Amino acid sequence: MKGGRLRVGVLGATGVVGQQFVARLAGHPWFELAALFASPRSAGRRYGEAVRWQAGGELPVAAARLPVRTITPESPPEDCDLLFSALDAASAEALEPACVAAGLAVATNASAHRLARGVPLLVPEVNAAHAALLDARSGRGLLVANPNCATVGLVAVLAPLAARFGVEAVQVTTLQAASGAGYPGVPALDLLGNVLPGIPGEEEKLEREPRRILGRLAGGEIAEAPIVVSAQTHRVPVIDGHLLALSVRLGERASPEAVARAIDEFGQPLAPLALPSAPRRLLRRDDAADFPQPRLHAGGEGGMTVAVGRVRRCPLLDVRLSALVHNTVRGAAGGAILNAELLVRTGRLGVRR
Amino acid sequence: MKGGRLRVGVLGATGVVGQQFVARLAGHPWFELAALFASPRSAGRRYGEAVRWQAGGELPVAAARLPVRTITPESPPEDCDLLFSALDAASAEALEPACVAAGLAVATNASAHRLARGVPLLVPEVNAAHAALLDARSGRGLLVANPNCATVGLVAVLAPLAARFGVEAVQVTTLQAASGAGYPGVPALDLLGNVLPGIPGEEEKLEREPRRILGRLAGGEIAEAPIVVSAQTHRVPVIDGHLLALSVRLGERASPEAVARAIDEFGQPLAPLALPSAPRRLLRRDDAADFPQPRLHAGGEGGMTVAVGRVRRCPLLDVRLSALVHNTVRGAAGGAILNAELLVRTGRLGVRR
Amino acid sequence: MKGGRLRVGVLGATGVVGQQFVARLAGHPWFELAALFASPRSAGRRYGEAVRWQAGGELPVAAARLPVRTITPESPPEDCDLLFSALDAASAEALEPACVAAGLAVATNASAHRLARGVPLLVPEVNAAHAALLDARSGRGLLVANPNCATVGLVAVLAPLAARFGVEAVQVTTLQAASGAGYPGVPALDLLGNVLPGIPGEEEKLEREPRRILGRLAGGEIAEAPIVVSAQTHRVPVIDGHLLALSVRLGERASPEAVARAIDEFGQPLAPLALPSAPRRLLRRDDAADFPQPRLHAGGEGGMTVAVGRVRRCPLLDVRLSALVHNTVRGAAGGAILNAELLVRTGRLGVRR
Amino acid sequence: MKGGRLRVGVLGATGVVGQQFVARLAGHPWFELAALFASPRSAGRRYGEAVRWQAGGELPVAAARLPVRTITPESPPEDCDLLFSALDAASAEALEPACVAAGLAVATNASAHRLARGVPLLVPEVNAAHAALLDARSGRGLLVANPNCATVGLVAVLAPLAARFGVEAVQVTTLQAASGAGYPGVPALDLLGNVLPGIPGEEEKLEREPRRILGRLAGGEIAEAPIVVSAQTHRVPVIDGHLLALSVRLGERASPEAVARAIDEFGQPLAPLALPSAPRRLLRRDDAADFPQPRLHAGGEGGMTVAVGRVRRCPLLDVRLSALVHNTVRGAAGGAILNAELLVRTGRLGVRR
Repeated sequence: MKGGRLRVGVLGATGVVGQQFVARLAGHPWFELAALFASPRSAGRRYGEAVRWQAGGELPVAAARLPVRTITPESPPEDCDLLFSALDAASAEALEPACVAAGLAVATNASAHRLARGVPLLVPEVNAAHAALLDARSGRGLLVANPNCATVGLVAVLAPLAARFGVEAVQVTTLQAASGAGYPGVPALDLLGNVLPGIPGEEEKLEREPRRILGRLAGGEIAEAPIVVSAQTHRVPVIDGHLLALSVRLGERASPEAVARAIDEFGQPLAPLALPSAPRRLLRRDDAADFPQPRLHAGGEGGMTVAVGRVRRCPLLDVRLSALVHNTVRGAAGGAILNAELLVRTGRLGVRR
Repeated sequence: MKGGRLRVGVLGATGVVGQQFVARLAGHPWFELAALFASPRSAGRRYGEAVRWQAGGELPVAAARLPVRTITPESPPEDCDLLFSALDAASAEALEPACVAAGLAVATNASAHRLARGVPLLVPEVNAAHAALLDARSGRGLLVANPNCATVGLVAVLAPLAARFGVEAVQVTTLQAASGAGYPGVPALDLLGNVLPGIPGEEEKLEREPRRILGRLAGGEIAEAPIVVSAQTHRVPVIDGHLLALSVRLGERASPEAVARAIDEFGQPLAPLALPSAPRRLLRRDDAADFPQPRLHAGGEGGMTVAVGRVRRCPLLDVRLSALVHNTVRGAAGGAILNAELLVRTGRLGVRR
Repeated sequence: MKGGRLRVGVLGATGVVGQQFVARLAGHPWFELAALFASPRSAGRRYGEAVRWQAGGELPVAAARLPVRTITPESPPEDCDLLFSALDAASAEALEPACVAAGLAVATNASAHRLARGVPLLVPEVNAAHAALLDARSGRGLLVANPNCATVGLVAVLAPLAARFGVEAVQVTTLQAASGAGYPGVPALDLLGNVLPGIPGEEEKLEREPRRILGRLAGGEIAEAPIVVSAQTHRVPVIDGHLLALSVRLGERASPEAVARAIDEFGQPLAPLALPSAPRRLLRRDDAADFPQPRLHAGGEGGMTVAVGRVRRCPLLDVRLSALVHNTVRGAAGGAILNAELLVRTGRLGVRR
Repeated sequence: MKGGRLRVGVLGATGVVGQQFVARLAGHPWFELAALFASPRSAGRRYGEAVRWQAGGELPVAAARLPVRTITPESPPEDCDLLFSALDAASAEALEPACVAAGLAVATNASAHRLARGVPLLVPEVNAAHAALLDARSGRGLLVANPNCATVGLVAVLAPLAARFGVEAVQVTTLQAASGAGYPGVPALDLLGNVLPGIPGEEEKLEREPRRILGRLAGGEIAEAPIVVSAQTHRVPVIDGHLLALSVRLGERASPEAVARAIDEFGQPLAPLALPSAPRRLLRRDDAADFPQPRLHAGGEGGMTVAVGRVRRCPLLDVRLSALVHNTVRGAAGGAILNAELLVRTGRLGVRR
């Protein structure tokens, strides 16, 4: 990295996704964790005291010592180059634009501005080209977003199909993990030996975001892909890992074998960029009859790979398959960090003076 | 009941479904539990000692005292009028026909003969007319089957739609309870905080059985309904209750409101028969956004009602909804008992001399 | 019941214990559910709309129609004879005495006044005589309390031991169900595939309350029993049913067989009173090696029986055993209702003019 | 390592503990995984095909390629220096002595020979000196055992107490993870929303093994420590991590603070030996009120550290505390590997010619 490591801050640092940012930024070769922001309730304490660490492994020592700070639209931090946002949508609404206006780069996991004009909604292996949306901006600040956690799994597996056969329509039913609702999130009484149908707001995101991500950049705008998505969502008693059962109507007919081959051959389009967080392969497919399973397979390549299985013919649409995405890693913090890495490598993001 | 209560036996009485038979037959007004059959491992002991009771409530005292007997194709019981079969498919293959040949009535939950010629595959509220298949038989013995547990939920909710609008195609994704795999069934390590995609053999049943159940009886045969079903199944960490997420293409377009009305108005077609196990309504619909949930809603009317929720437009097919069936009750033992009650009431089943 | 059924209200009616009160009062022969009270958030709506019903079975129709009301210390209800309180301790602090001062009977599950002078802390089969504490009161109002949910299981199984052998000390480790923390209560992320050691405030109650319950009434005061209790508590991923592993030092040595016999012979001391909610036996013992289990055995006699198993010698103290109590029934709502029934039957509680 | 890496084999390689051996031996600096043994059912296939990998992360590539072999008492492997045994007790009974007789070193997790004369039962940080039991043996073969998985947690936390204050008696109640029962192990229907009291055979081990481990080596024999242990065990719906609630009577009175200090100062007695698998500290103590929790804290230092919390006065014995041990790592495979490392470093185990 020319010019040294970027100083990064995390917004919403004590939450489930915030912790995942902290875990993954420890020892990052390009980014130096410089500031942690949370609600006034936590502010003033050391991060190690304010957080209820649940991100696996041990809380990184350097992060534990950082003071938790608050942030308001009126006081964007001056000592950061880049902010990773794990805010909820309501908080992100005003806070993220204020930080951008102050010249900061913001890589957000929040949904507030995902569909806003000029904001690339990125899964880098799928639509890195959309980063060019940023090139028309005035000023130094920028905002880049990753999609909804379940959407990431969906577009990841659709990408090779869209490229090779075209995708016209998708029926997707999700079985989503508890961590996707944050902490405290879902009460235990709702999820012990139970399933909750219908995650509020989730089906809309799953039906809309893929159209944008799989769309084409033309004339400084995204022309959405004409894909019809029908989503039915469920919360299941799983810690991490959103499982998706898909049925896809392709643009041109293809056998399950051809679809499996397209998935296997997708590889890692970002390989030439050597991004630190990029997995060797975006998609890992396995022929086992009960693959993929959230508890066993969500963590492939540190949670950055999407697991795919059960590719078979659909008697109604064309092909069916199952996909599994680690919701707090590839579907949130890991995805946002990869987005920022892409911007750094493509010269859109650097150290502020 | 003319001629007194029928003497009934249960095949596979120590298993999950077998226990449910025993629980529901205690105090049954028409049926008297007379014999319990299980594998040689249990034989010779009192049922109360041989069984690991998990069917809820307390093991009925009269059943606890019955000796567990074995049965072979060569030795159908002579002291029973009716057998309820909770056998696995392999055991049922030879045993059930042998019992029928010996003049016994068999109401089976096993899949072995569900699609056999002359065997009514019944959900009485949906296709009671198919019982007439039995009228062509020679001899006194008879075999009647209930469908796969998840299929019951599917056809229950399709029935009013098929009747009013026609049904052309269904995408169904299931989240199925652990009890559906019997005991010991699924290992805890596979299901704690996990989901297993792809239940062996289940998708085939879900795609085939509804065509027969919703078919028409004509000329002593069932003409299958031309419905395309695409099923994706999952085992989830739930005790009882299979949840189904459906998307349906109707024969004629209908609004979600019209579909909801059809469901609400379906009522209980069997009401005039006053069958002891029939619920007041086959379908219970609720508008709550997170209805139905297995732990809370599978047990409506003793588990005999199918819960329906989330009726809404589908951007791809026509209408989407969620359905929940108690798999060991309506989907198994309760369904089989209701089948037998139907046969009794329609004069097809009575006390053997 | 002379004078007709008592008009009863439930405080905290929308919570986990409040719902259990509502469920158990439907069809009660002596009590008529007349009023439901909850926080201002729910007030003004019908109970059926305000509640997220989780108490099993279906919400009783009559209760569903009742309006939810609020209550303050300044406005005790005038249309009730008896209040069942499912309040948290903080709310109960002022509210319950205000109701008593207004001449109401209050049977509370809250901990606020359990150890107060003049308040009987009752498990009727164990210490019904303590109800006489009420006889010295001035005025018509009265307050009776049931113990902490886990304490109920503890004193239930200690009662026959204390009576026959004396009890000097108890080591008790609990595995407590999620419903004991109310709703929303414990976050799913804390309890899926996990155990939480140390339930706040619980160990103190388990160590103190048994001394009072097993104490003697003398001179209008309770002389606490000199029993040393050491409690270690855990929250486990179970819906209902607190499991206790006990080791007991008896006053006089006794074999496990003698202890088991004492438990088996305890029976139902209240039998002559014919209280509607009293189970046939307080204690149900079983010799199975893995008895009792929360999911299978907490609900004996509608949840009013305490299950006891694994009685065996302790190499350190005298005898070890396991006990299981349904925490929201016998340990809360069912216990409070039984308390009120005892007061009615013993002439301490009746219809207000 | 003088003389190159030892060639090691794993007995019972496809089971839960066997997989953990395979995972931890990949890349081990001293040991080279050379052979995998399992039941005839798996034999002849590549390990990668025979195993249902559940040990976390990805199956090591080199192990996946190894053929699965069978072993009988008549055919101990000739191409191994050291065997790690994850056999069940029955299989270990004859097989392990046969391997020892053939000159092999066996580090076993099986219980069959744990209490046999001449077999060190080791937790190296606690009783490394017991390894000297091996010095009296004739022949090259040797057998070293690690204790029961829950026992490891118990003696780990007792070690500093025994050393500083003496330990006279212990009441211990366990909450043990599903993985401790192997695969398939406990049925999901037994553990979803449930707890099983009384793990067969486990209480005896917990009451006996600590006496030996904390005993003194004198005259070539272990003089057992006169500690009375009373154990009550439970299986809980947790994947990994046995939680223990202890109450301890010390030889000399000590405050909870003094006990906590003894735990904190225990450190890593093996530090001078620089064993590859030894954690920096055997015990990790934390003051948080709800520490330790299986899901969050069993994996400290790769699962080799025992987590300790809730140190407080006991009103009955002297001090209470909670301890958590990763049952398949420190309590099984990791412990056995550490045992072998100790033997290598102390010159008792080397490459066979």
